Amino acid sequence: MLDKHVTLAHGNGGRYMHELIAEVFARHLANPALDTSLDAAPFALPGGKVPVVTTDGFTVRPLEFPGGDIGSLAVNGTVNDLAVSGAEPMLLTLNAIIEEGLEMACLDRIVASLGRAARAAGVAVVAGDTKVVPRGQGGGLYLATTGIGVRAPDCSLGMKSIRPGDVVLVSGSVGDHGVAVMLARHEFEMKGALASDCAPVTALALPVAGLAGLRFMRDPTRGGVATVAHEIAAASGLMLRLSEAAIPVKDSVRSVCKMMGYDPYYLASEGRVVAVAAPEAAGRILASWRSLDEGKAAAAIGVIAAGRAGVILETEIGGERLLEELEDDPLPRIC
Amino acid sequence: MLDKHVTLAHGNGGRYMHELIAEVFARHLANPALDTSLDAAPFALPGGKVPVVTTDGFTVRPLEFPGGDIGSLAVNGTVNDLAVSGAEPMLLTLNAIIEEGLEMACLDRIVASLGRAARAAGVAVVAGDTKVVPRGQGGGLYLATTGIGVRAPDCSLGMKSIRPGDVVLVSGSVGDHGVAVMLARHEFEMKGALASDCAPVTALALPVAGLAGLRFMRDPTRGGVATVAHEIAAASGLMLRLSEAAIPVKDSVRSVCKMMGYDPYYLASEGRVVAVAAPEAAGRILASWRSLDEGKAAAAIGVIAAGRAGVILETEIGGERLLEELEDDPLPRIC
Repeated sequence: MLDKHVTLAHGNGGRYMHELIAEVFARHLANPALDTSLDAAPFALPGGKVPVVTTDGFTVRPLEFPGGDIGSLAVNGTVNDLAVSGAEPMLLTLNAIIEEGLEMACLDRIVASLGRAARAAGVAVVAGDTKVVPRGQGGGLYLATTGIGVRAPDCSLGMKSIRPGDVVLVSGSVGDHGVAVMLARHEFEMKGALASDCAPVTALALPVAGLAGLRFMRDPTRGGVATVAHEIAAASGLMLRLSEAAIPVKDSVRSVCKMMGYDPYYLASEGRVVAVAAPEAAGRILASWRSLDEGKAAAAIGVIAAGRAGVILETEIGGERLLEELEDDPLPRIC
Repeated sequence: MLDKHVTLAHGNGGRYMHELIAEVFARHLANPALDTSLDAAPFALPGGKVPVVTTDGFTVRPLEFPGGDIGSLAVNGTVNDLAVSGAEPMLLTLNAIIEEGLEMACLDRIVASLGRAARAAGVAVVAGDTKVVPRGQGGGLYLATTGIGVRAPDCSLGMKSIRPGDVVLVSGSVGDHGVAVMLARHEFEMKGALASDCAPVTALALPVAGLAGLRFMRDPTRGGVATVAHEIAAASGLMLRLSEAAIPVKDSVRSVCKMMGYDPYYLASEGRVVAVAAPEAAGRILASWRSLDEGKAAAAIGVIAAGRAGVILETEIGGERLLEELEDDPLPRIC
């Protein structure tokens, strides 16, 4: 029988820790490849493919928010880094850094959600570790996940292949996650109207990953679409011209941003894909995305131009403004 | 030019974060497989072997202590979980959860140390992520690492194969790390006399991993040798009889433990191996260990007996006492 709150003894390697691992982690994450008695877990990957690995830390606050929680976020964030690289996600490892005093029921809900998200994304959690830190030295719960997947040997996605004339695409509305988390921190009345877009992007990314003319994909998480645009500009040395009218932003997200003084282009999405593609491939990618529920709002939002590296937003009233690189932090602990 | 302290803006995905990653992480961890512009990194493993994966979180306090720091600890802790599984460590991923206000020079020293430890252990850091959490919601720096290695297909190490008559071995003195960290937290006069044993155990573990008669290896980190003994007892259903006179404990460790009321058998070592082997293999393992500087104090410390699962310590004065399973936390944030 577990305590009502996590204590330091749940992290010491002894009986309490084994109970916590058995009754919370192993129970919700059970799969044939998970054996919590091992120091290292064997795994197998399909032959003829290239293995890829990615890792991500999660410090979102609050731990639970409309549309998700730190558990589903950790799975989807890691799965999505594999998917936008053209890789099929296969397995995950999980680190939990738990703050003394965290409600056991909250931890249980989050690990259960993490397990559901992993099953939904088709990945097995094969190894894990838990640490408990003293009260006042944590944020309730921090997670770190590493994901392993495989991609086709001829996959050549990368920012370096981007060239002038290419089209910038996004698979759905931007900023939903950032706004949902921000509202969940406060007692705003409109909270109910908004949910995070936290979801796997596997079904969006993998069917188009091998398409000739697709140059690059990335999920616009920390720093949002504007930050992905800046990363592309910096790596390619080219100019991105984005069209404000074309970037899908939900009315509810737009009005919260107006009220709070945030720019939605800098806010995280956790279930979207930004892609850059040659013009002849862009239409096929949009058609593929729009055939899915999560891709109904997919749009071409800009073009790659020659000229000085940078990001310009063509405004709805016909002007243009520089989308600056993010310097100050608009929203700490959002992912 | 980096700030003197880490700020929240170093975690937001924008310019400051890119600078932090380039000037601290990418600089110290540079290797041909590390490309910080990728969402997921391709990797290759030697053919004909079984890939294995392990993961570990690190929350030690203070961040730097005699004999190591959280950076070298993270590399060696993860490398050692692979090595005791009979696997050659190949690559690592790294998560850093940094508390706002951490001195940049301290972070730099730790990442530099992590890089040195990785090179010494022959592993490449191929992917990473950094998050910055607000002041008062972290412990300076938490790290989480995942390690991937390969082992021989016929490697069958595991607690299940342990049987009565087997011998329990340890590769060196126990409790050094636990005592070094505990003293580093306080201003004890004798601090200088003790250092952590933090080190890779690859040279100890791998040469014996394929030996017939070796059943199982584990590094006695959290909870120490007593906790490994309990894990063996629980998994095998057998009794471990350990000999107090045979367990190597440094005089300095013993006297600090006496003074502070700790039992050295429950204190973490971070560069030792506990092994269980058939009697005919035990001598060869000890000889292999003792041929190395780090294995000079290797010893046979007990035997596996039939009877009720548990751990008994035969005391130096000829009595015996139960080594209980750890319940209370003797030393939080020790690894």
